[in-house]
Amino acid sequence: MTRVICDISVSVDGFVTGPNDTRSNPFGDGADCLHDWLSVSATDEDRAVLAASVEEIGAVVMGRKSFDKNEGDGGWGDLGPFGAVPCFVVTHRVPQDQYPAVFSFVTDGVAGAIEAARAAAVAKSVQLHGASVMQQAMPLRLVDELRLHVVPVLLGSGTRLFGALDGAVELERTKVVVTPAATHLTFRVLAPSDGVGGG
Amino acid sequence: MTRVICDISVSVDGFVTGPNDTRSNPFGDGADCLHDWLSVSATDEDRAVLAASVEEIGAVVMGRKSFDKNEGDGGWGDLGPFGAVPCFVVTHRVPQDQYPAVFSFVTDGVAGAIEAARAAAVAKSVQLHGASVMQQAMPLRLVDELRLHVVPVLLGSGTRLFGALDGAVELERTKVVVTPAATHLTFRVLAPSDGVGGG
Repeated sequence: MTRVICDISVSVDGFVTGPNDTRSNPFGDGADCLHDWLSVSATDEDRAVLAASVEEIGAVVMGRKSFDKNEGDGGWGDLGPFGAVPCFVVTHRVPQDQYPAVFSFVTDGVAGAIEAARAAAVAKSVQLHGASVMQQAMPLRLVDELRLHVVPVLLGSGTRLFGALDGAVELERTKVVVTPAATHLTFRVLAPSDGVGGG
Repeated sequence: MTRVICDISVSVDGFVTGPNDTRSNPFGDGADCLHDWLSVSATDEDRAVLAASVEEIGAVVMGRKSFDKNEGDGGWGDLGPFGAVPCFVVTHRVPQDQYPAVFSFVTDGVAGAIEAARAAAVAKSVQLHGASVMQQAMPLRLVDELRLHVVPVLLGSGTRLFGALDGAVELERTKVVVTPAATHLTFRVLAPSDGVGGG
């Protein structure tokens, strides 16, 4: 079954960018280190983690800010496969400019985008790109898995990965990979009926 | 040398209590599970993690809210050793009630409380109890170590462990212990001069 996965690098204090993230400064101030495990600090284990994730991406869902920040010459162009799979952009307004056919603009919210992405991903996974769509999808219980690449830094400000919830969401840790540059933690999001109770 | 340690259970989204934490509901709504690794879900490895931490506590620093919430019949009474070491409470106003002699009330801020606690701890460590004093101490570079017991749950609201910072604080992960109930991560806080740079 197609899983909906949030796979993202995050500081120990829960930020996925530093402050002042823009198209020309996509990771925000002081936060380039969040991605060192992908590049300058990458070990074979880090590369295996990345390769496994990239390999299974069948479609991407992202918010409009991520699209505006990354489309074209921005950061995501570096990640190759992200540009080669269908990408559904959650937006209030379809842009007038022409974009490559890989992009679809979805105006009925994150649930519709995820539904379309599931269909497009076929047997692969749907990757939620950026914090915004995850924050929208989690309260709707539309996220199946979190893959957090926890980087040993406190950023203290920027874009938070997690948003508010009406109640607790139980997780099950399914994998831990420890490398010098990151602690790679995978969690399955449990359905309310799977929960073991809040103690 | 006496280390200043923040040793605390935290949800994957960075909360140390759920909402509505009070003296009668010390962990807040839905957050009792944060401490299951200490009790119902404890394995021998969890117990060893706890024992090692408790054994080295030479003094405690806590905020006034933690004190008001926990003193006497509250949660911390269960943790035995916490009541047997000098405890410095950061407060604006010294309470008029009589408290056991183990408690000292410090009105000149977290730095003074940590200084007094360091002296009292002798060769052991200073334990920062609760998020508030850690949030005050971290920007002053008065925290040496974070020991995070990451529990597989998203709480979505409550008391956040980490606060705002003026700039990034580099960490070095020094230990990982993986148990079914928690991922125990220890980080050394690097001095600015130790930093490997932000990428």
